[in-house]
Amino acid sequence: MRMAVDGLIRRLDAINRIGYKENDGITRLALSEEDERARNIVIHMCEELGLKIRKDAVGNIWARKEGTDPNLPSVMMGSHIDTVPNGGRYDGTLGVMAAIEVMDWIHKKKILHRHPIELIVFVAEESSRFNIATVGSKALAGSLSISTLKNCRDADGISLYDALLQRGYEPEKLETAILPPEKAKAFVELHIEQGSVLEKEKIDIGIVEAIAAPIRLQIQLIGQEAHSGSCPMEDRRDALNAAAEIILSVEKNGRAESKHKTVATTGNCKVFPGAMNVIPGEVYLYIDIRGIDLQSMLRVLNAVIAQTKEICEKRDIQYAIEVLSRERPVSLDRDLMEQVKQNCRKLGLTYKEMPSGAGHDTMNIAKIIPAALIFIPCVGGISHNKREEVRLKDLKNGLSILFETIISLAK
Amino acid sequence: MRMAVDGLIRRLDAINRIGYKENDGITRLALSEEDERARNIVIHMCEELGLKIRKDAVGNIWARKEGTDPNLPSVMMGSHIDTVPNGGRYDGTLGVMAAIEVMDWIHKKKILHRHPIELIVFVAEESSRFNIATVGSKALAGSLSISTLKNCRDADGISLYDALLQRGYEPEKLETAILPPEKAKAFVELHIEQGSVLEKEKIDIGIVEAIAAPIRLQIQLIGQEAHSGSCPMEDRRDALNAAAEIILSVEKNGRAESKHKTVATTGNCKVFPGAMNVIPGEVYLYIDIRGIDLQSMLRVLNAVIAQTKEICEKRDIQYAIEVLSRERPVSLDRDLMEQVKQNCRKLGLTYKEMPSGAGHDTMNIAKIIPAALIFIPCVGGISHNKREEVRLKDLKNGLSILFETIISLAK
Repeated sequence: MRMAVDGLIRRLDAINRIGYKENDGITRLALSEEDERARNIVIHMCEELGLKIRKDAVGNIWARKEGTDPNLPSVMMGSHIDTVPNGGRYDGTLGVMAAIEVMDWIHKKKILHRHPIELIVFVAEESSRFNIATVGSKALAGSLSISTLKNCRDADGISLYDALLQRGYEPEKLETAILPPEKAKAFVELHIEQGSVLEKEKIDIGIVEAIAAPIRLQIQLIGQEAHSGSCPMEDRRDALNAAAEIILSVEKNGRAESKHKTVATTGNCKVFPGAMNVIPGEVYLYIDIRGIDLQSMLRVLNAVIAQTKEICEKRDIQYAIEVLSRERPVSLDRDLMEQVKQNCRKLGLTYKEMPSGAGHDTMNIAKIIPAALIFIPCVGGISHNKREEVRLKDLKNGLSILFETIISLAK
Repeated sequence: MRMAVDGLIRRLDAINRIGYKENDGITRLALSEEDERARNIVIHMCEELGLKIRKDAVGNIWARKEGTDPNLPSVMMGSHIDTVPNGGRYDGTLGVMAAIEVMDWIHKKKILHRHPIELIVFVAEESSRFNIATVGSKALAGSLSISTLKNCRDADGISLYDALLQRGYEPEKLETAILPPEKAKAFVELHIEQGSVLEKEKIDIGIVEAIAAPIRLQIQLIGQEAHSGSCPMEDRRDALNAAAEIILSVEKNGRAESKHKTVATTGNCKVFPGAMNVIPGEVYLYIDIRGIDLQSMLRVLNAVIAQTKEICEKRDIQYAIEVLSRERPVSLDRDLMEQVKQNCRKLGLTYKEMPSGAGHDTMNIAKIIPAALIFIPCVGGISHNKREEVRLKDLKNGLSILFETIISLAK
């Protein structure tokens, strides 16, 4: 069935008023005031459809529509609504709003389904605030510990644990959020590609075969602060110059492995004291290595570590490398991919198997139940950016394929 | 006369309680609350000695002791008490406290002098807050404009002009702060070396022959923000990777000119948006080039500009280079240097002519009247740092040579 998109657009408009600033895009950091307000809007939308709402121990929102057979496992769909700083209208939010629209359609059209259908809004998918990604789905997969919740902190020093407490959740009951595999049949997430492959190749739907996983590092470099005028070049232990060499090493090693679809990025470089007339004494680098080929990722990781050591020894700089997260690439369920392909053919949509460079909650859920990730094109491949845009026909295609897939699974 | 240092140490202790935090050193940014409190303490100290206090249009503090001949030009001494973030106990502050102590000594011992003696506390010597250095002495030398005061802003966007207004000064009357050359005979500043030449060579006093001048640049780099996982290495326009190449170019060009005593430093690198999963779209670099050989400095400047262009063209990065300040190295008065040498011999102190790598208020004053800059060693050459330290005997030597020099000039 090809669905109308007006409802979806209305829902996107409503939720994207929260955290929006002209010229700045949308900022709804995980568990922030804005995030909480947007989550309440989602709950309200689901209640209007008569769905049964619950929140688990880490704040994931669940909205359930019973099927005709209450003993069957549920069919799940969902995504997240938190954003990066100055993010766009679609990342995550599209998957949640499309899922609500699918629920609405099933409800309005009184479509019968045997399996219960569940919508989930994952908490804290973006790592921007707490330097840890896909928190909600990690909790479902049982791959999160209370000590991790306590150790991940935002820029103000607030731990993820305390932020959850503050919002009324129960991080100490983390284990109760684990999803027993027998409770769910499958999970489907609709998302924008966040790249430009589909757009360039003029393909409607991307069917993700594997999700790249990030390895994340923090490198602390300690040199010697000194006056920028009176310390001769040959006596310096400049932490920023060492950092510059490491940043270029990250890029070089990422490029060397790009044939294996591995990428490497230094996302931030913080300089202390950061004054114009002081040689930097301390620098922090934040590095993200991603790919779908673990061996290739590890080659980048090991080369960056070895070259950091070499650069710092040469420059007499102390360093400390902390691996903030280390995840494995995840292959997705072939049967479910086949099901999505069938539905594409039914709807007359072109499709392509592809990897996902970005991480998604699907990668955690895929560890416990069959899971599918469906991409639609975004304009210019731009994402995590206020200029994120999706063409109307692609919104329609995405909504239709999500609907067909959920119904074919829940029937 | 060899002076006792107890008074000087008491004064340093008193003023350095302001802005001090354990483990963080001293932070008294120009025109901050802390700076203002410290300046009030200076005024109080000077009033106790019966000195006549005034503040000029930009907030320089003047404290005057009349001599026996009111028609003679004054002999000036002074420095500044604002600091870099997390600075030390001596930079600038030593010169002010020693000058007060010299006044105290002349007062107590009832030493006769024909010339008036004036103490000046220059405003905003450090560039840390407003990205412009030696503001107070620039005003005296007439090398400051109201538009510069309005254009230099701190991290919160407050202009130097507004900060002066806020503290009750009269930036619009900037011209009234200009020092007519006939009003002053000479200026003497006592300062720590901020390098380790004197310590290494075991010399008591540095007599500065020339002061290096900084050329300061801001380089803005604009690439393309994109998701760190889904944008292939070959499609990236990463502003931070371009910045890393420029940082290394600054270092390389500084090293190439180090035989001419030129140095080059990137003091800060600000990354936007600075999230772990976003390719940096925008970076600002802050660069400081210094030397006593203008041609050598210009070679570094031109090479950095040329290489920035090359790097940005290669990487498809937009860039904007702004020259924030561009000063010329200043040679100091030979006669005054000879006078200081004579006084060193009289006191039995070893001395050495040397350049000053760091800028000082003296360089501006030297453009209008004979000016001298006297260095004492600091431990390990460490400065602009909470670990800044001066040996007791060097404090004593510095105080004594300042006293002898002022008295020999004012007699």
